[in-house]
Amino acid sequence: MSNKLVEPHGGSGLSISVLTGEALDCEQKRARSLPKVHISHRAMGDLLMICTGAFSPLRGFMTKEDWKSVCGEMLLTDGCFWPIPVTLDIAEAEFGSVSVGDEVALIPPGTEEAAAEMTITEKFVLDSSEKGYECECVFRGHGKDSLTGFRENALERHPGVKMVLQQHDHYLAGPIRLLNSGDVMSGRPDLFLTPQQTRTIFTERNWSNVAALQLRNPMHRSHEYLCKTALEVCDGVLIHSLAGRLKPGDIPANVRIRCIDKLIEKYFVPRNVIHAAYPLDMRYAGPREALLHAVFRQNHGCSKMIIGRDHAGVGKFYTEYEAQEIFDRIPTPKKEGYALKCTPLKIDMAFYCTKCDGMATSRTCPHEEQFQITISGTRVREILSGGGSVSPKLIRPEIAEILEKYYQNENLGA
Amino acid sequence: MSNKLVEPHGGSGLSISVLTGEALDCEQKRARSLPKVHISHRAMGDLLMICTGAFSPLRGFMTKEDWKSVCGEMLLTDGCFWPIPVTLDIAEAEFGSVSVGDEVALIPPGTEEAAAEMTITEKFVLDSSEKGYECECVFRGHGKDSLTGFRENALERHPGVKMVLQQHDHYLAGPIRLLNSGDVMSGRPDLFLTPQQTRTIFTERNWSNVAALQLRNPMHRSHEYLCKTALEVCDGVLIHSLAGRLKPGDIPANVRIRCIDKLIEKYFVPRNVIHAAYPLDMRYAGPREALLHAVFRQNHGCSKMIIGRDHAGVGKFYTEYEAQEIFDRIPTPKKEGYALKCTPLKIDMAFYCTKCDGMATSRTCPHEEQFQITISGTRVREILSGGGSVSPKLIRPEIAEILEKYYQNENLGA
Repeated sequence: MSNKLVEPHGGSGLSISVLTGEALDCEQKRARSLPKVHISHRAMGDLLMICTGAFSPLRGFMTKEDWKSVCGEMLLTDGCFWPIPVTLDIAEAEFGSVSVGDEVALIPPGTEEAAAEMTITEKFVLDSSEKGYECECVFRGHGKDSLTGFRENALERHPGVKMVLQQHDHYLAGPIRLLNSGDVMSGRPDLFLTPQQTRTIFTERNWSNVAALQLRNPMHRSHEYLCKTALEVCDGVLIHSLAGRLKPGDIPANVRIRCIDKLIEKYFVPRNVIHAAYPLDMRYAGPREALLHAVFRQNHGCSKMIIGRDHAGVGKFYTEYEAQEIFDRIPTPKKEGYALKCTPLKIDMAFYCTKCDGMATSRTCPHEEQFQITISGTRVREILSGGGSVSPKLIRPEIAEILEKYYQNENLGA
Repeated sequence: MSNKLVEPHGGSGLSISVLTGEALDCEQKRARSLPKVHISHRAMGDLLMICTGAFSPLRGFMTKEDWKSVCGEMLLTDGCFWPIPVTLDIAEAEFGSVSVGDEVALIPPGTEEAAAEMTITEKFVLDSSEKGYECECVFRGHGKDSLTGFRENALERHPGVKMVLQQHDHYLAGPIRLLNSGDVMSGRPDLFLTPQQTRTIFTERNWSNVAALQLRNPMHRSHEYLCKTALEVCDGVLIHSLAGRLKPGDIPANVRIRCIDKLIEKYFVPRNVIHAAYPLDMRYAGPREALLHAVFRQNHGCSKMIIGRDHAGVGKFYTEYEAQEIFDRIPTPKKEGYALKCTPLKIDMAFYCTKCDGMATSRTCPHEEQFQITISGTRVREILSGGGSVSPKLIRPEIAEILEKYYQNENLGA
């Protein structure tokens, strides 16, 4: 077997657009004189994913035609698979002051320094009915809560729907070039690995069959089990933490990252895993987001994407295994390179079973519920923030300790 | 994803040659008047594998050219991948009394009833130097014991070498038709599933990604772990027990099969596994036999073959992971259908780790040996046959009980 990594999505290599050296100095200076366009935290994450090649073959924010085709067909207008719109909404006043053909400086929140330059190729509007259409396409699941439809009351209940409906109505499309990646990694810039960097590391380690583990939580034993199951059958695992924005109540990135580092130190063979983080905001789009996760993991060089129970879900919007099932129903693009090549490693929810005397899932454990130790994340939070202790069958003691401290400080501080 | 099973090896369907109904009655009668050729126990197993399609695309025993090409190149003369010779050696007296073009009745040990008819297409001789060549090609590993070469003293030490060197010098080649499968399954004929039967069951269960677990032992927790790891990432697992002949000291098939049935009953989700057996004699050819295992599992409809530590090995003839590594070095046949399509699911040796608090391998457990509970098969045998008990971390108590009884009876009887 050759040690060849899966090719980047789209079939024409990584589309990287990061200025460096003299070109960077020069463009950073020039950017100060360009019209300023202020962008959201989410757009900043998308921008970094685009420019580093994690969103290959995208070279910029989408046009309205691409937006529509991705919503309805999960295909870009050229026929390449793509599951979720990546659009740039901006304030109406700024929209009015720029024209197609202009170069503009994209300014993220909290700074006046340009993160990127953009060449505007299209200006368009998405009205509230069009945003509703996006939500129905992207966020509609088949879980208990999805039945009432999104327009009525989902705004309050679904953080992804809320995000889209609260976007501006005005959008710019066009290619972008990265000037400044800012501090996206919650003080751990070493964890931000570009697709080029992960591919280099995988190749150095002689890996070809690499699985990615998506994490937005502190890695309980159930996640450890997913990761270790993948490790048994792959060359290595990329533990990929989300460092972008989550919904209120989720544990912040720096705490989660400390938990994962500790777990790797105490319970993993470090040479078999790589811990990295990426700057995307969660969409909570369940199945569609699982597909997006596979797309950018393919760009990072991963041939497998671990998809557990209710991947990228929220509340009861999606059924438990909807994010696994969607991989069986994605369109077959006309060109071979346009197809998604990172395949799902579908693993059921894991638990500790006292009869099995180890971790198991419903696929491997035949015993009654009374022997299976499970607990909801909410309940873990309640116990730990109340100063109680959680079974080491659920959370490793070293991780519980970090979480207890976090909750204690939060209780004191908040 | 379509629920399509991996295609049979060779690219032209299963080559089944089993007579039934009137044709069978007629041919069974006719066979009584054909010249009798007595065949070995091993040849009887091979014959069943050929006729049921488990050895597709083979339709009979190999010619000398195929034998030579398979030894040296792992390819049949038509260019199709094949890892181990499948030849029919017979006594010189019988060899002398038949001619090319003759139809003969193949008579297995212990009966005078024909198992199959054969049309002789070639008669050939393999002298002792040619058998030595076969042994060097097929059994030479890179373990500690392989260095001295096979001709000197391997006859005594390697059961596969011994088998080949003790074969007759005279061989018949030609296509065969099954008349009578005899009692090959140690009293459990229900466990003998043909490739057509396993494929039917897989399709009924809607499986497409099926892994095979090769078993010639009673299924300790380490094998259970291999099987369950595969179960987490595949649609189902075919637990495939060898019911042919083993080397002295190995546990007989009926005891092993009882252990596996009990383990499935107590520790597996029965709908996710199928327990079957196949009538091949062990060759102990390590890497080459692992490839043969993958070939006939592909014919059974399995896309994955679990390959653990020292698969199909014996003594120290092969290195620990040589049988995994050979899959990376097999020749690429000219025709796509001629390539092996059943890929290895390589899993390291498993053990119980008290720090991990569960089963693990060297890929997933970073802890020191003192926390890892391992024990050799020989030591297990010593303890159980001495009336001692083995840790439930190594063998499930229900299985240990069956083995204890077997050893007690053996001690009394032998």
